[in-house]
Amino acid sequence: MNTFGNIFRLTSFGESHGEAIGGVIDGCPAGIFIDKEFIQNELDRRKPGQSDLTTSRKEPDQVEFLSGIYEGKTTGTPIGFIVRNNNQHSSDYDNLKDVFRPSHADYTYQQKYGHRDHRGGGRSSARETIARVVGGAIAKLALKESGIVITAYTSQVGSIRLEKPDAELDFNAIEQTPVRCPDLETARQMIERIQQIKAEGDTIGGVITCVCRGVPAGLGEPVFGKLHAALGSAMLSINAAKGFEYGLGFEGVQYKGSEVNDLFYRKPDGSAGTKTNHSGGIQGGISNGEPVYFRVAFKPVATLLMEQPTIDRSGNETVVKVKGRHDPCVLPRAVPIVEAMAAMTILDYKLLAKA
Amino acid sequence: MNTFGNIFRLTSFGESHGEAIGGVIDGCPAGIFIDKEFIQNELDRRKPGQSDLTTSRKEPDQVEFLSGIYEGKTTGTPIGFIVRNNNQHSSDYDNLKDVFRPSHADYTYQQKYGHRDHRGGGRSSARETIARVVGGAIAKLALKESGIVITAYTSQVGSIRLEKPDAELDFNAIEQTPVRCPDLETARQMIERIQQIKAEGDTIGGVITCVCRGVPAGLGEPVFGKLHAALGSAMLSINAAKGFEYGLGFEGVQYKGSEVNDLFYRKPDGSAGTKTNHSGGIQGGISNGEPVYFRVAFKPVATLLMEQPTIDRSGNETVVKVKGRHDPCVLPRAVPIVEAMAAMTILDYKLLAKA
Amino acid sequence: MNTFGNIFRLTSFGESHGEAIGGVIDGCPAGIFIDKEFIQNELDRRKPGQSDLTTSRKEPDQVEFLSGIYEGKTTGTPIGFIVRNNNQHSSDYDNLKDVFRPSHADYTYQQKYGHRDHRGGGRSSARETIARVVGGAIAKLALKESGIVITAYTSQVGSIRLEKPDAELDFNAIEQTPVRCPDLETARQMIERIQQIKAEGDTIGGVITCVCRGVPAGLGEPVFGKLHAALGSAMLSINAAKGFEYGLGFEGVQYKGSEVNDLFYRKPDGSAGTKTNHSGGIQGGISNGEPVYFRVAFKPVATLLMEQPTIDRSGNETVVKVKGRHDPCVLPRAVPIVEAMAAMTILDYKLLAKA
Amino acid sequence: MNTFGNIFRLTSFGESHGEAIGGVIDGCPAGIFIDKEFIQNELDRRKPGQSDLTTSRKEPDQVEFLSGIYEGKTTGTPIGFIVRNNNQHSSDYDNLKDVFRPSHADYTYQQKYGHRDHRGGGRSSARETIARVVGGAIAKLALKESGIVITAYTSQVGSIRLEKPDAELDFNAIEQTPVRCPDLETARQMIERIQQIKAEGDTIGGVITCVCRGVPAGLGEPVFGKLHAALGSAMLSINAAKGFEYGLGFEGVQYKGSEVNDLFYRKPDGSAGTKTNHSGGIQGGISNGEPVYFRVAFKPVATLLMEQPTIDRSGNETVVKVKGRHDPCVLPRAVPIVEAMAAMTILDYKLLAKA
Repeated sequence: MNTFGNIFRLTSFGESHGEAIGGVIDGCPAGIFIDKEFIQNELDRRKPGQSDLTTSRKEPDQVEFLSGIYEGKTTGTPIGFIVRNNNQHSSDYDNLKDVFRPSHADYTYQQKYGHRDHRGGGRSSARETIARVVGGAIAKLALKESGIVITAYTSQVGSIRLEKPDAELDFNAIEQTPVRCPDLETARQMIERIQQIKAEGDTIGGVITCVCRGVPAGLGEPVFGKLHAALGSAMLSINAAKGFEYGLGFEGVQYKGSEVNDLFYRKPDGSAGTKTNHSGGIQGGISNGEPVYFRVAFKPVATLLMEQPTIDRSGNETVVKVKGRHDPCVLPRAVPIVEAMAAMTILDYKLLAKA
Repeated sequence: MNTFGNIFRLTSFGESHGEAIGGVIDGCPAGIFIDKEFIQNELDRRKPGQSDLTTSRKEPDQVEFLSGIYEGKTTGTPIGFIVRNNNQHSSDYDNLKDVFRPSHADYTYQQKYGHRDHRGGGRSSARETIARVVGGAIAKLALKESGIVITAYTSQVGSIRLEKPDAELDFNAIEQTPVRCPDLETARQMIERIQQIKAEGDTIGGVITCVCRGVPAGLGEPVFGKLHAALGSAMLSINAAKGFEYGLGFEGVQYKGSEVNDLFYRKPDGSAGTKTNHSGGIQGGISNGEPVYFRVAFKPVATLLMEQPTIDRSGNETVVKVKGRHDPCVLPRAVPIVEAMAAMTILDYKLLAKA
Repeated sequence: MNTFGNIFRLTSFGESHGEAIGGVIDGCPAGIFIDKEFIQNELDRRKPGQSDLTTSRKEPDQVEFLSGIYEGKTTGTPIGFIVRNNNQHSSDYDNLKDVFRPSHADYTYQQKYGHRDHRGGGRSSARETIARVVGGAIAKLALKESGIVITAYTSQVGSIRLEKPDAELDFNAIEQTPVRCPDLETARQMIERIQQIKAEGDTIGGVITCVCRGVPAGLGEPVFGKLHAALGSAMLSINAAKGFEYGLGFEGVQYKGSEVNDLFYRKPDGSAGTKTNHSGGIQGGISNGEPVYFRVAFKPVATLLMEQPTIDRSGNETVVKVKGRHDPCVLPRAVPIVEAMAAMTILDYKLLAKA
Repeated sequence: MNTFGNIFRLTSFGESHGEAIGGVIDGCPAGIFIDKEFIQNELDRRKPGQSDLTTSRKEPDQVEFLSGIYEGKTTGTPIGFIVRNNNQHSSDYDNLKDVFRPSHADYTYQQKYGHRDHRGGGRSSARETIARVVGGAIAKLALKESGIVITAYTSQVGSIRLEKPDAELDFNAIEQTPVRCPDLETARQMIERIQQIKAEGDTIGGVITCVCRGVPAGLGEPVFGKLHAALGSAMLSINAAKGFEYGLGFEGVQYKGSEVNDLFYRKPDGSAGTKTNHSGGIQGGISNGEPVYFRVAFKPVATLLMEQPTIDRSGNETVVKVKGRHDPCVLPRAVPIVEAMAAMTILDYKLLAKA
């Protein structure tokens, strides 16, 4: 269950404090030009220490490709890659060996496997998402050749919410602030809120919105392979994700059908378009040619820099205080991860649609 | 992509106006007692015409089992089953052969396949969920032997929302009203709202909440097989579903970590429990032994009994008016479908955890 | 594990003495013309009672399609189908309820499931192959549109072996004799041998050769998805199959590389051909454009019309004598099954190669 | 298609002359003790240069584990590993960039992908089997805890064939000769034959027999997941494999049912055994508790140290002469690969049977 996808498949491995994080990308079409600078840049968007909104850990996260690329292009054979771990302070975790951090995976891994690498969260660490960002970067390179562009941004932090619709936003502004919200005034408020929370040793949640433009009609399989179900599954596999909605989502339940049905019209080129896009670009599980968009909810990070009561492996009540360097808010660094998972899903369904 | 599950697998087939809806359940453990009355009762909860809140179509939906059961018990071999279609008014759909109903799957199926059975929505019809209810009923029978009980109910219709937490609800009241909301006063308001919408020839959306009790700790696979990602994918595969959230979901993003972390304590029997259950019974993608709960958003039904502008296959602008008998609100009949998908998912992950 | 294939997938169900044998074909391309007469003819080639070389059971084996076909063409949605069982003499099997027939699946099913339908072999019955023949017939119809033709024939019965190479055979002669061997003199000897064996109440094994013409270069996936591994797995899933070889197979191990390497040459149209085809049309797991051919070994049918010592479920030694009507040699009826499995495999890999 | 298995899954990557060969083992049970010395020893059995029967290339093939192991035991999370490539003479292959070696994968890869790494065979190189041997070694460690032991040996080289049945062989003698045949006189003849062939610059094929002892009854899934079909698919995925047979295999087709049926008897402990084991330990696709055995045919290596006519990418006829260091016979080094694939298959089906 560490493999994602049907045709374009990422298999991921690695613990936070093990030797390396890595993966294998199988099913990538042959002949895709591999822009290593772009891939490294995607990793840099994910890495810790990029601003004072994130953990201060410094992890260079340099990717090394081991196979599947020849003369700068993919060969169609599996692409193996690794990113070495080398800024691990494993001793920070010594006190966690036998206690369960609240709302973490410590207890459930212990129950499931009986034996776990507790250091830095082991396999449940967000460092695992490095493999996804590499996979997503390669998927983006393949999608770019078909004119498909995937963009995510932070649309909510705590109760600070960006209300403007996508169409009114300047996506070029996303990377201008460390919080990755394209509306600069809202971004300013979000940043202020995160800094305040960080000062308290506490954490806060939020929402990321993702927009996929250029997706052709016809992607998605009926019944159990609906495109939005695949996207939902992809997003809910990201650490700390608690919800997924596309199109009008939860808010749309209060409307009448006559208020939200997307009416078809004839576009100048003779093809069909919809006047509104409340469907989020997907109807009956299949893309209709309009932009695909969705939102992902992230809970506040469970790791707090304060004492919390808990129990240990023997069932004794105790107190845990986490050391180390942690994110007060996962959102800014989760933006490239959401994009990566979306890119791999869309490419996978594009390849499925050809079969 | 008409197969659901890893070990316990449902493969579904059938169009609304074809010969039959049916399926194959593979990987069901041997020796499960098949209570046919229970299964038929589950189908009756799903079928149309059960109250004036639903479509007036009468479909007996009698299931016929064709294999995999011997002397009243499963044999471990695949269970084939069919439900004949026999109340189809195909001529109701003659005028839809070449036009695309707004926010339906008509256009996307046409784009994907170039050739479709337009009658009654064909494969995209909600009749397809019959196969899921049969699969879910058998999964429930298998889960019951392990003390796992799955219960769903309507928690929102339009803007009428049931605010009480699960623990304060009497689940025995769910089937007492046709809207399947266990709080009778809220149910009354919901029913009134649906009747009003129906009189307008319009439709309305809502939310279903599902609670899974008795789920043992340890179900769910790390990274890409998280239990909530599997549940999310299952729910988003249901017609008209637009969103999924578990635990605190979207609402939880505005809290601080210190407000929502679930603190562990020692239960009288020495095992670990959590004082709150904001995690929805799942931590790091793996069940922790607390109840698993989640919510699913459904959009208003796209089929309206009023004229809507649209285009036809040739791209000409036209008007569509749907005939036939349709649901003003999908929620009451979707309750057993949500339960069925949850039951199949939990059983599948229970079997995976043994492997 | 009752599903076969990656993109074009057959899910099969049904026991010999249950209600029906059936299946679901998922992933069939849309727009394939369904020639029901051809499909029924394929079933007739498989059915018992077609000659005095086979069992005298009469089973009409009429297929009923339930979905996925509209206006005579596939829609791309799953094709459900059933064949009713209605010539079952279940009482013939009463004495087998608690004893294990030698070299049958009785004992292993009992060990695996603890509960089994013993009548007519239950799920392990060769009646299950009905579903494969239907799936294969539809695959053949899809392949025919690309000029791919799959032909199998009996090449060995007991020690009577057809020595002529494929190229010297007239495939039109295959259906001229009930043993399905295209060399009429060899066929005559095979028939005589089977009749003699039948008179003894005994059974005999043999080999089927299959040739796939028109397979384009490029089918097959490297490493674990080699085309011959997929074909081998498909063939070894047929009841009574004991071996698979392609190209020179086992016989080729005694040659030197210089004797059997297939040398490339330039064909008149400029493309590459090989002067010999010892590789069986597959190199490195991928088709090279030459005919794909392979051989499948079938053991003698385990059901004998004579007394055999065995044990019962309690472990007591006893004697079993099978009643009923059985094949003295599986080969004639296995020819269409080998073709069906080959057709589904080749089509599946053709669709995979497009993805 | 670079992933093998259902529950215990190996995903492999790497080209002969790329950075590294490696893989990810997913689904390995937690708590298995990892004996690194044993694993390295398995790799040493596979590596080139171990005797004068194999290529003289020296490849240390040291495995580095990157994840999934903590305190010497598996954690249940994916085990990533790499083996660096560092004895590549890529320039040996310069003359092969545009020509197709006969009976190699050069032409078919070019046709399939349009772009390939020609150096050392790229992905089609037998170096890829390193990943299999690592996966198989870990599977053996897991199986050993259940008393399952898998042993392969060379049973035929060219026309020199070991006729003794398994039961009369001393498996401890297998590793005593470089050809890995447990009968020392036959081994002597095989070695002589290989040395003679090598002196000619030619190559020769052969057969490997594999015996799996201690396999419990009940492994294997009916219909499309038969244990022997899984083993067959696994073996046919090995480079140069041309055939697979289990039990009596091809030879058994000439017998009568009454001659080869395996009669059950009551063992002293009350359980069922069979007097003979012509079934190869598998009946109806499911293991019956007797030893599982099978044979795999390998063609002569296609790489000859002599001139061969061929064509180039432009379709021009030319001559190819391969440089470099190559095996005259693949058999000795394929023995551990056959064992590795068998071990992974048996473990995978053991885990499936628990689900």
